[in-house]
Parts: sequence; structure tokens; C-alpha cells
Amino acid sequence: MAPRNAFYAQSGGVTAVINASACGVLETARQYSNVIRTVYAGRNGIIGALTEDLIDTSLESEAAIAALKHTPGGAFGSCRYKLGSIREQRAAYERLIDVFDAHDIGFFFYNGGGDSQDTAYKVSQIGAELGRSIVCVGIPKTVDNDLAVTDCSPGFGSLAKYLAISIREAAIDVASMYATSTKVFVMEVMGRHAGWATAACALAAEQDGDAPHVLLLPEVDFNEGRFLARVEECVQRQGQCVIAVSEGVKHPGGTFLAASGTTDAFGHEQLGGVALVITRLIIERFGYKCHWAVPDYLQRSARHIASATDVQQAYAVGRAAVEFAIAGKNAVMPAIRRLSDQPYQWDIVEAPLAEVANKEKLMPAEFIGADGFSITDAARRYLAPLIMGESYPPFRNGLPDYVKLRNAAVPKKINTPFAI
Amino acid sequence: MAPRNAFYAQSGGVTAVINASACGVLETARQYSNVIRTVYAGRNGIIGALTEDLIDTSLESEAAIAALKHTPGGAFGSCRYKLGSIREQRAAYERLIDVFDAHDIGFFFYNGGGDSQDTAYKVSQIGAELGRSIVCVGIPKTVDNDLAVTDCSPGFGSLAKYLAISIREAAIDVASMYATSTKVFVMEVMGRHAGWATAACALAAEQDGDAPHVLLLPEVDFNEGRFLARVEECVQRQGQCVIAVSEGVKHPGGTFLAASGTTDAFGHEQLGGVALVITRLIIERFGYKCHWAVPDYLQRSARHIASATDVQQAYAVGRAAVEFAIAGKNAVMPAIRRLSDQPYQWDIVEAPLAEVANKEKLMPAEFIGADGFSITDAARRYLAPLIMGESYPPFRNGLPDYVKLRNAAVPKKINTPFAI
Repeated sequence: MAPRNAFYAQSGGVTAVINASACGVLETARQYSNVIRTVYAGRNGIIGALTEDLIDTSLESEAAIAALKHTPGGAFGSCRYKLGSIREQRAAYERLIDVFDAHDIGFFFYNGGGDSQDTAYKVSQIGAELGRSIVCVGIPKTVDNDLAVTDCSPGFGSLAKYLAISIREAAIDVASMYATSTKVFVMEVMGRHAGWATAACALAAEQDGDAPHVLLLPEVDFNEGRFLARVEECVQRQGQCVIAVSEGVKHPGGTFLAASGTTDAFGHEQLGGVALVITRLIIERFGYKCHWAVPDYLQRSARHIASATDVQQAYAVGRAAVEFAIAGKNAVMPAIRRLSDQPYQWDIVEAPLAEVANKEKLMPAEFIGADGFSITDAARRYLAPLIMGESYPPFRNGLPDYVKLRNAAVPKKINTPFAI
Repeated sequence: MAPRNAFYAQSGGVTAVINASACGVLETARQYSNVIRTVYAGRNGIIGALTEDLIDTSLESEAAIAALKHTPGGAFGSCRYKLGSIREQRAAYERLIDVFDAHDIGFFFYNGGGDSQDTAYKVSQIGAELGRSIVCVGIPKTVDNDLAVTDCSPGFGSLAKYLAISIREAAIDVASMYATSTKVFVMEVMGRHAGWATAACALAAEQDGDAPHVLLLPEVDFNEGRFLARVEECVQRQGQCVIAVSEGVKHPGGTFLAASGTTDAFGHEQLGGVALVITRLIIERFGYKCHWAVPDYLQRSARHIASATDVQQAYAVGRAAVEFAIAGKNAVMPAIRRLSDQPYQWDIVEAPLAEVANKEKLMPAEFIGADGFSITDAARRYLAPLIMGESYPPFRNGLPDYVKLRNAAVPKKINTPFAI
């Protein structure tokens, strides 16, 4: 059988290691040139397929492809775009088929989180629904760590490492100054629904009393009275209190704290910033000097301090995706399976896309401490291996030397445009 | 002459490398045990001297002292406390003399910024004013880089490196997503009066068009119309705009933007967060999707990515301070003198404390671009060497292995307490 081309795209919020998965895909595909001729990357995710805006990765040097392994962000552009069902958006799926046909694309790799695996799953059904044959493999990625089936999600380990390091460092700063200055420090952490990232901050603490002293997880209803009592007790006992708060913390009714009545001078609802809401509560009640931090995108792009474990796993799922496709496996995703905590051992298994699509894995109850402000030993055993190892990028002029690809467009073969 | 004891203390906001200066002081003093018997550290800065709360550093192992070189924060505690003049606060100075006498302290090392060098200068005048002999040497430190005489201030290079890396990484994230998501990213940077830290963000840009696209420096009056026009032009040309804003940006009248009428639902002035003010302006005018980050303490405690140059200089000023003291030099501070930009060469010279105390070195006009939103080549030549080199701390369990000292108290010899 003649080799066919492949399509690869990145989807959803990018991470410090999604390009390591791209590296795994591209380097492995180059080894199987008898099956995969060229990998075309979608510019800005699936939008690149719909608009026939394809990037010819064969024009990138081996060195450039290798450098993806240490470069954060999405090298081909990502997107926030969700495909409806084939029935709802038949024109879009027919357009995909036209583009795949025009460019002889027989393999489809989609690198993203739960929504993106849903898109991948729908594309995998083109064969059954529209009579076309395409081998479709999802590749896991999300800093939220909320993908089903896989033990962890590439991207999360590096986020976790960055956050645990950052809160350890900031807490050392607070510990140096609290006698005459800041007593409470609040760090806001990503994770709208799942508290994995906030939980990871707890890895900074090794002994009783170590920071962070309080976690506010989205899985636990916010109780203002209990929270403030906890902060007061901590400041009275230790002189200071360091708090990690998830952006997704909610009132018992389900409203986000970040949207709870804080408005600016114009009467507009305050932009994000649950850290400010928490800080305000503490100042109102106790008058302690507080500082707050919102690392925002810094936390998911901090390739300079990526977890070596995470980089390895991100690469491995990219490589496995190609191997699955070569074996003709459709509608699957390489998932990470944990074999043991200590020593940490893992391998890659097949997960059916149907079981991954649109699922959201929250922290299980047994990972959350009885007080609701901490994590259990089981959670620590789960989280600890994911931040192991440093994988420093090369530096030039004091800064990480990240690659910027040529991203040359494949000449279009279809004359009709497609409106997104 | 019999050896005498020394007093060392850390003052003001801590940095990623102030403990490297402590390491320089302690390791060097141990080499001169014929002159300096024991270094007593002040717990929480000068407060430790006033309250006779001294730490016996001779009880710390060599390994622990060596580990200070890679540990952020202030290992002995720092403080925000400014001594008035000898005339205003005669009791405090007499108390210092009592404590120094009781513990046979003949050397005084004070590690801090402009205010702290003022304290050091005042203590250095005890001899002339109160008839006591103490050798007093200041040690420079400040992330603000605003100390006079010295070419740069230890602490700044690591802050600069962290900020330039962070904005480069976040900008790669934005570049991956702007087609369908965030178009404007705003990062708030420390520096209430001087724009050195904000200027350092520009090191992330290597070519025309690279992020950051706009700097808002405290040395330049904020002009809302010109700023918004610049952002719009940038988004129209490049699809995105990445902004570094100093916390100290001011309206032409001198009011801080961060305090300009943004209040929460309770009518309280908004806590800090000039990034939010800037973001709000952009959303009001253009409706672009924006994200903002406030790294706060993360930026000054990020020892995990410290500048090797900064670490070397921090250690060197600590060592030089002891050498100056051994040579009997009073009322001086080791200053860094730049010998050449490229290759970067520097040495240590003596700066009279009188010339350093209470001074504030802003960015010179020739470092600020004609448009007011950028820096000049001269500024880049100045800043570039300060972030050179990586000085990674050791890691354990995926996290930096920072030292916590024993900090055993020296038995008190004075029975009267002293109220701060």
C-alpha cells in the first residue's frame, strides 16, 4: 500500500510540553516513511483542516523538530473550537473529507484535552457515518489533569512542578518578612473544575507546618467562616499563612467566588482574580498585611522548569499515537498507566476515545483531607512522581533558546473557502 | 589585638540571592578567625540588634552555610524598619551600643537597599557622635536596582532573568492561541519608582515584532490615548499584544494608576493590581480577550532560575564587605564597577555609604525609547550581561533543596527589654 499523509493538530490551551508530543509524532512518523509520507500540521488546530491551512512539517529540519521537545506553547498554533455532531455540522465534516481527500490524508492525530478528544472521536466516526476511511488517534494533553482513563495528563506534571516550586519560594520570602511585613500570601492557581493543580502546591510542604498552609479546592464548597478561622489560627500559631486557591472555588450554591459581587468603579464584574477576593476577605476581617499572586499563563508555559517525567510522557504519547495509527488502530488514545508509585513506573496503553471524550476527572474524595483544606497521603503518593526530574532547555544569552518553526503553508488545492 | 565578634543582618524586601551575600560574609569571616571571632546574625534585621535577639552562626555547619548560596529569601529574617537620626532616636543608638558592648561586637554588616544603607551609614557615625568604635560596612541588595554608585544591585539580575523568561514563555503561549482566544497579555512587574525590572522584560525580544510589544515604565507619564492607540496598532499588525507594566506607572499628575479609582463592590480602593487597570482599559475600548498575570513575590524569590552573574556578584559583595572590615574601612559599601559590556567584566570598589544612603537611581533618559514604550540599545547593552548564566539549585524529590538554618539564639546578657 502506498504511503499516505497524516494530519496533526494541537487543540485547546497549550502547555509547556505539548510540543514534546508533536516532537514524538513527527520523529516517529519520519521513521515510518513507508506508511506515512508527510505530516501536515493544522495551523491553529482543527481550523487549519477546515480552512485548508496546512503546514508542511517535512520542510522543518531535524534539529528544529528535536527542539520542539524543549519549547513551550503550540508550535503550529492551537484553537478553542469545538465541532458539533456529524448530524449538526455535516458541512464541516464533509469539508474535512474534501481536505483529507485533496491532500491524501489517511491519518488524523489530535492533541488536546477532553473537548478535543471528543472532536477526535467524532472525526473517527467519519468512516462509519460518511463512508470514508481515516485512522484517527487522540493524543492526551491538559494542564488540568482531568482527562479520563489516563493516569495523568501530559502538561500537568510541569504545571504542578512550577506551582510547587513557586509557592515554596514565595513562602520562604514570606517567612523572612512576616515579623514586620506581609503575614498572608495568596496564590491563585488554574483549574476551573478540578483541583489537581491546587493540590500539587501541597508538594512544597514536607513537614507539619510547612507552607502552603491552606488549600482552597474547587471540589470543596467554600465556607467563609471556617476558612477565616483557619487563617487566623495559622497566623496566631506560625505568624504567617500561605494559601493556594483554585480559580474555580465556589460558594455552596455553585457560584464562582471570582464572580461574587466584586465590581470595579464602572460597575463591571471584576476580571478573574479569586486571589483578590480571598485577600479582601482576610484584610476585612483581620487587617493582616497580605500579598497575592496570579501567575496565569506563566504556570502553563514554564518550560524552563518542566518536569522531566512530564516531558518523557508527552513525547511517549506522541510516539505511541503514531505506532497505534501504523497498526491501523482507529478511535483510540494512548493513555498513561501507572504500574507503581515508588519506584514510579508507567507504560502506555490504548484507551478508546469514546471513553475519554467529554469526560472530566475530578479529584477523588480520598485525596482530599478531612479538613477540606489539605490533601491526603494518597494524594501525595499520586502527585509526587509527576514532578520528578528537571529537563532544562538550552539557554542562549541568559534566556531559554526556544525554536520557532518555519511553518510553511502547503499549497491549497481546493478553491472554495470555508467560513469558521 | 584579640578577635572581636561581628553583627550581620538582612534588611528590606528579600531577594533570590541575598543569602548568597550572607554566604560570602560567613565563609570569608571564618577564614579570618584571627580578627572576627563569631558572626552573630540579627533575627529580623536591625530589630535583632535592638532586641538583643542574636543568632549564633558558628553553630551552623559548613554545608549549611554553603547552601545559603542557592537558597532564596532571608535566612535570618529581614525587616522593614528605618532608624531615624542619632539625634531623633538616641535611645535606639545607645541600645545598639549596649548590645554591641555586651557581645563584644566590633563589626557591623548591613545587607539591604537604599534605606538600609542609610541605617548602616547612621550606625557608622556612632563612633564620631557617641564615642564608640565600630567598623560598619553596608552590603548592597535590591531587586529594584536603584542603588546609587554601584553599577547594578545584587538581586536585580535574577529578578530580571525571571521576568524576561516568564514573559517570553507567556508570549509563546499567546502566540499559539491569539487566532481564536487571548489577544492581549499584561504582566505586572515590581518597581514602584524605577523601571529597571520592567525594562528587563524587553530582553525577551530579539527581533522586531518580538514580545513584549509595549513597556509601561514608571519614568514615563501614562498617556491613555497614546497607549491604547499603540495596543490597537499592535493587535492589528500582529494579531496580539504583550505588555509589561510597572506597578509604579503614574498619571501625569503623579497618581499611581493602581490607585486610580478602581474600587470593589464595598467601595474600597482596589488592592494593587495595575495589570487589572490596564486590562480593563483595553477591554473597555476594544473588547479584545485579555489575560493578566501578577507574579508578585514569585519574581523576587525565584532562585530556581537565578542569574549566575547575579549569584556571583551577591557572593562577591559579601566577601568584599568582610575584607573591607578587616582592613578597618568604616562607612563604606562594596560596589560593583563595570569594566566592559562585552565581554562583561566587573570588579568591586569602595563606595562611601554617605553617597549611597537614601539615594534612588532611576533609569536614565537615554535608556528609554523615543516612543516611551520601549528601551534603547544602550539599555540592552547595560541589562544583557546581568541575566547571563544559570545557577540551578540542587533538587530533591522534584523540588529545589533549600536550606533552613538552625538559627540558635545567643544567650541574652542584658536584662532590660527594648520596645520597637
